[in-house]
Amino acid sequence: MPETADRKDDHVRIIEEEDVETSGTGFADIDLVHEALPEIHRDEIDTTTTLFGHELAAPIVIESMTGGHPSTTKLNRALAEAAQRTGIAMGVGSQRAGLELDDEDLVESYTIVRDVAPDAFLYGNVGAAQLVEYDVADVEEAVEMIEADAMAIHLNFLQEAVQPEGDVDARGCLDAIERVADALSVPVIVKETGNGISRSTATRLADAGVDAIDVAGKGGTTWSGIESYRAAAVGADRQEQVGKRFRAWGIPTAVSTVEAAAVHNCVVASGGVRSGLDVAKAIALGARAGGLAKPFLGPAGQGTDAVVDLIETLALELRTAMFVTGAASIAELRETEYVVLGRTKEYLAERR
Amino acid sequence: MPETADRKDDHVRIIEEEDVETSGTGFADIDLVHEALPEIHRDEIDTTTTLFGHELAAPIVIESMTGGHPSTTKLNRALAEAAQRTGIAMGVGSQRAGLELDDEDLVESYTIVRDVAPDAFLYGNVGAAQLVEYDVADVEEAVEMIEADAMAIHLNFLQEAVQPEGDVDARGCLDAIERVADALSVPVIVKETGNGISRSTATRLADAGVDAIDVAGKGGTTWSGIESYRAAAVGADRQEQVGKRFRAWGIPTAVSTVEAAAVHNCVVASGGVRSGLDVAKAIALGARAGGLAKPFLGPAGQGTDAVVDLIETLALELRTAMFVTGAASIAELRETEYVVLGRTKEYLAERR
Amino acid sequence: MPETADRKDDHVRIIEEEDVETSGTGFADIDLVHEALPEIHRDEIDTTTTLFGHELAAPIVIESMTGGHPSTTKLNRALAEAAQRTGIAMGVGSQRAGLELDDEDLVESYTIVRDVAPDAFLYGNVGAAQLVEYDVADVEEAVEMIEADAMAIHLNFLQEAVQPEGDVDARGCLDAIERVADALSVPVIVKETGNGISRSTATRLADAGVDAIDVAGKGGTTWSGIESYRAAAVGADRQEQVGKRFRAWGIPTAVSTVEAAAVHNCVVASGGVRSGLDVAKAIALGARAGGLAKPFLGPAGQGTDAVVDLIETLALELRTAMFVTGAASIAELRETEYVVLGRTKEYLAERR
Amino acid sequence: MPETADRKDDHVRIIEEEDVETSGTGFADIDLVHEALPEIHRDEIDTTTTLFGHELAAPIVIESMTGGHPSTTKLNRALAEAAQRTGIAMGVGSQRAGLELDDEDLVESYTIVRDVAPDAFLYGNVGAAQLVEYDVADVEEAVEMIEADAMAIHLNFLQEAVQPEGDVDARGCLDAIERVADALSVPVIVKETGNGISRSTATRLADAGVDAIDVAGKGGTTWSGIESYRAAAVGADRQEQVGKRFRAWGIPTAVSTVEAAAVHNCVVASGGVRSGLDVAKAIALGARAGGLAKPFLGPAGQGTDAVVDLIETLALELRTAMFVTGAASIAELRETEYVVLGRTKEYLAERR
Ligand SMILES: Cc1cc2nc3c(=O)[nH]c(=O)nc-3n(C[C@H](O)[C@H](O)[C@H](O)COP(=O)(O)O)c2cc1C
Ligand SMILES: Cc1cc2nc3c(=O)[nH]c(=O)nc-3n(C[C@H](O)[C@H](O)[C@H](O)COP(=O)(O)O)c2cc1C
Ligand SMILES: Cc1cc2nc3c(=O)[nH]c(=O)nc-3n(C[C@H](O)[C@H](O)[C@H](O)COP(=O)(O)O)c2cc1C
Ligand SMILES: Cc1cc2nc3c(=O)[nH]c(=O)nc-3n(C[C@H](O)[C@H](O)[C@H](O)COP(=O)(O)O)c2cc1C
Repeated sequence: MPETADRKDDHVRIIEEEDVETSGTGFADIDLVHEALPEIHRDEIDTTTTLFGHELAAPIVIESMTGGHPSTTKLNRALAEAAQRTGIAMGVGSQRAGLELDDEDLVESYTIVRDVAPDAFLYGNVGAAQLVEYDVADVEEAVEMIEADAMAIHLNFLQEAVQPEGDVDARGCLDAIERVADALSVPVIVKETGNGISRSTATRLADAGVDAIDVAGKGGTTWSGIESYRAAAVGADRQEQVGKRFRAWGIPTAVSTVEAAAVHNCVVASGGVRSGLDVAKAIALGARAGGLAKPFLGPAGQGTDAVVDLIETLALELRTAMFVTGAASIAELRETEYVVLGRTKEYLAERR
Repeated sequence: MPETADRKDDHVRIIEEEDVETSGTGFADIDLVHEALPEIHRDEIDTTTTLFGHELAAPIVIESMTGGHPSTTKLNRALAEAAQRTGIAMGVGSQRAGLELDDEDLVESYTIVRDVAPDAFLYGNVGAAQLVEYDVADVEEAVEMIEADAMAIHLNFLQEAVQPEGDVDARGCLDAIERVADALSVPVIVKETGNGISRSTATRLADAGVDAIDVAGKGGTTWSGIESYRAAAVGADRQEQVGKRFRAWGIPTAVSTVEAAAVHNCVVASGGVRSGLDVAKAIALGARAGGLAKPFLGPAGQGTDAVVDLIETLALELRTAMFVTGAASIAELRETEYVVLGRTKEYLAERR
Repeated sequence: MPETADRKDDHVRIIEEEDVETSGTGFADIDLVHEALPEIHRDEIDTTTTLFGHELAAPIVIESMTGGHPSTTKLNRALAEAAQRTGIAMGVGSQRAGLELDDEDLVESYTIVRDVAPDAFLYGNVGAAQLVEYDVADVEEAVEMIEADAMAIHLNFLQEAVQPEGDVDARGCLDAIERVADALSVPVIVKETGNGISRSTATRLADAGVDAIDVAGKGGTTWSGIESYRAAAVGADRQEQVGKRFRAWGIPTAVSTVEAAAVHNCVVASGGVRSGLDVAKAIALGARAGGLAKPFLGPAGQGTDAVVDLIETLALELRTAMFVTGAASIAELRETEYVVLGRTKEYLAERR
Repeated sequence: MPETADRKDDHVRIIEEEDVETSGTGFADIDLVHEALPEIHRDEIDTTTTLFGHELAAPIVIESMTGGHPSTTKLNRALAEAAQRTGIAMGVGSQRAGLELDDEDLVESYTIVRDVAPDAFLYGNVGAAQLVEYDVADVEEAVEMIEADAMAIHLNFLQEAVQPEGDVDARGCLDAIERVADALSVPVIVKETGNGISRSTATRLADAGVDAIDVAGKGGTTWSGIESYRAAAVGADRQEQVGKRFRAWGIPTAVSTVEAAAVHNCVVASGGVRSGLDVAKAIALGARAGGLAKPFLGPAGQGTDAVVDLIETLALELRTAMFVTGAASIAELRETEYVVLGRTKEYLAERR
């Protein structure tokens, strides 16, 4: 079994067994203002939105997670079938293994998603660090692998810095992103993986022509935390220590959403999004959609119905939030009144 | 036993057995300023106030709760006898069952209140959602049922949204309210049931001609919490989950009181009011009176004396607060100095 | 044994046995700024101050506590001997019993203080509520009883309101105070007993000609708490309940000190002062001295040496605070730099 | 064994056995802003800095700790060997014992550092209180003792005030410092020992010509705490009590760093610095380097490798912070974006 694929396996196991979530997204500091007289029918609220011209039944995204190991085929199948059934978007995990290794079973762990979800909005995933070595044709190959509707490029330098074997050369990434954004046949999303994107970085990405920014801020899954456990397992004490130290590093998701939305009109809020209410808050703060990764992992293991069930709960929570704020559509939800309190208020005030 | 009445029974049982109160009314963030030299006699303080021309011995309201099931007759009797004895106001629970079902025992659960409280200020209760289907004559019937001094129309759309069988059509409510406010023989109070009323909604209600607004804000009884328990009991997992998620949804009572009082001169503060000191704070914030529901439920089960006892304790707490702020009358209490701290201060600052 | 004297006995017992202290003086929100280079000799710091022309070795006051029951003679003896030895000020408890009852043993519980402390600054104590009934000659009698250097008039209307038998007529107090302040042979201090004095009340007292204000703010001994225990013991449920409800009522001592010092130049800070560091903070906030009651009660029971020991610890803490802020005198300490944080900062900002 | 040396031994033992750390440096209120696209190679980040023309491999300082007792030779050897190996700076503990006592073993506890670290940046240590009695030649002797690259003068008057035998005469220190700063052959650092240096004191030190200021603020090792334990051991109750009372006295390290850096361009941040991330924050706030004392004590007891290991972990944490803020050099780190939250924000706002 090649290293890249094995690593994915390690990660999934650690995420299932250890405490790999932080807190502090800032959503608890956001209060949507109750509308006692909504004057709408809950069941006629329109939760649809569009992403690059593709309609989603609800502004909910299953964030990039797995693929790259035969054992993940089952997970991706469940996620994709559920996306197909419910009409939401889904990303696959890093396609590096699929691109670099020549193993049919492994490649199937990605291709399965399009097989079972012919109509869903599916997007691919490559790392910015790898991008420097790829040319656009390689990325196009990743697109084709799943007939992707878009391609996500992930930024995860803190994670790389904690991995004993991590790729810590971050030079040239912005150029590489610009190159791909320019030439690729599908829209490009740039995403973090749990530490957020600042206003100035979002501006640079907007200038580079990326089509969407997925903030993946602080408060949910912590990759430095995960790598710290993995380092501990192989006796890499220093990495273990550094991973712990940076466990809660990053820009809180609510803050990052506000900052990115100030400079880009297609922002996905993720990182610790844990309910349809969080999704509603993210949209009120300016996001186009909310994304969740870890909460889908358990249900994916149980099968498609469990994933569908989670999506429907999220959708009903979102719909309920829209109902009691009187928002008949996602566009209205973006304009709903809210208050920002506590540390998140302080954070935003400091950043102005 | 018809459904509506049974539901009321479920509710009362859950409220007695489960944890159905949240926190965060904001009253803990309000400090009335001590007056070391009050220059008044405590026992000559005038706690009377008027509601629609009717004098109350104290600005304390027993909020809308029961009726609609024969088993509640005893509760309403105790509450009404106590209101009569102490000179405060009392509302009955939703009269829907009384209007829609033809059952003498059931109707008696409402009519008992006027029988035992010929002089008390008593007000009826209908839901805004039902109102759309009623014409004014139906509401007038509810008035007559208890010879009501006023009629409360409740807004409870979050609760409806959590109920599996809930009425989630909120369209036309404002028009229906305006229609009733215009034509009814008695004043109309519009009330929430635990999620509060914002400044803009209060403005719409004022424009519709309602005579009073009862904010019933966040921090006391949580109806999404209650419906969550009820959903759990019938295995409605998704509703259970949504109910939990919105358990603490709403505008804190102190905030809602300030907002509503900014646009309407007859505001009742309720939702988590738990003492005469809270009532005093509410009045300093601009309310005409303070209302309590859940705290009266236990005493009502024990009988009239227990209810009277609670009212007298509340009244003495209020009187004591007036004494040590040097307020000789409710009008003076409205002008007393106070400070707003913490999250409530932040909330109000954000909303300005 | 007459009622007044017995009550004093009850109080002392409850204070020794129950939890009768609140928190929230605000001193924890005050940080004196460290001076790493004080450029003074600690042992040459001058901690003396004057009160009405009388020099105190340190600006520390043993607040009004006991007297009025033969069992308290021993306590007052220890306190007075210690005041004499250490050169600080001391007040006796309410002299009402001494004035109204004709009992030699009882009177001795007051007179003992001057017997054992011929040179100490000692001040008497009468209640504002009683004052209305007394003429100046009666108060003069209280002065003579202990050859008082000043007379304290206490305001304790919250306590009275919680006592089943309390005197809740607060009318005419300000006039009575003005009358006494005008005519008495010694300076008049007006003091609260744990709920603080606001800026506006301090202004009225200043206008009435009182010579000092002792704020006795919120955060230390709670008299509503104490009376609540006493009410419980006699089965007065409603008073017990009201006492609990107002347990933490009042203006935080730090806030009250700032407010009173803004309008009067002789302010004693008390109410939850628990160390020489608190005294130093109070002086930086504008007080002339800091006073403590409850902390002296235990040592008083043990005897003079224990009281002296506490005073010397307080004095050393104060001296240490002066040393590390570089304040060579009390006048310099009043000008030392400090920061105000948290809720106290909010409170003061709201009151400006 | 002479007193000074024994005292050092006591201290080390207490620090190892008791809880002698406070919290509240303020670093937890500082958030460096994540840079998702750093565009640098982690391993090419330049962490070097210069101190008085001497290059350090990283801006990390082993703060003044031991020497003066034969048992500390082993500790100083390990610390110095590690400083030599890793290229960071190190201070020795107070050289008073070395200067005043004629004991070869004891002197060796200092001289060992230069023996094993011929190239490291090493600095000496004398107390400001002693300085008044020394002339420049005595201090020069201390420099020669370890061929020091600089001399630290410590300010520790709170500690002295808690010691039963402490030197509490702080007069003339500033003059003495100025005299030494003027005439000494090496640069002079003035340092606190855990209570911080205010902006105004830093200004006075800058005017006196000192070359660097080491703030040693509140939040780490507490010397009043340590002396409180020592006082307890000898039954000095009052000192024990005063020590406890002032346990958390001082200016938070983050605040002190900002204040000192506003008026001096060579500030070392210390006092509760506990990671390379704290060092990074300190530099962003304006410090030239970060220093740690207590965290090195345990490793020093284990030997050189343990100390090197800690330094390398600190250095990697710092490097990681630089990587994920996109800072390619210490100069860039000083310009990195950060937010200040909570109490530290309030503190700084109050001090402006
Ligand atoms: C099991 C798992 C695997 C992940 N793999 C990838 C990945 O391959 N590529 C990527 O861009 N992000 C990956 N992520 C990060 C997520 O896409 C997301 O940004 C992050 O977990 C924060 O969201 P969460 O708090 O909802 O988990 C993964 C997350 C999880 C939990
Ligand atoms: C047992 C119970 C029954 C209630 N029934 C009604 C009702 O029928 N109609 C209504 O408008 N509100 C109803 N309410 C809501 C209350 O009137 C009130 O708005 C809410 O409970 C908040 O007040 P509290 O925190 O003091 O309980 C009920 C509350 C309780 C506790
Ligand atoms: C045992 C005891 C008796 C007291 N008796 C009196 C009194 O007779 N007259 C008075 O003015 N205050 C009296 N006080 C109030 C104190 O003078 C003081 O204002 C209050 O206790 C707050 O200070 P502390 O928190 O340090 O106790 C008494 C306090 C205590 C603890
Ligand atoms: C064991 C020990 C001994 C110390 N001895 C000295 C000393 O001799 N001279 C000095 O200036 N500071 C001395 N200090 C203070 C430190 O240099 C430093 O300023 C302080 O401990 C705060 O840093 P920390 O929180 O990282 O320990 C000592 C600290 C410790 C822990």
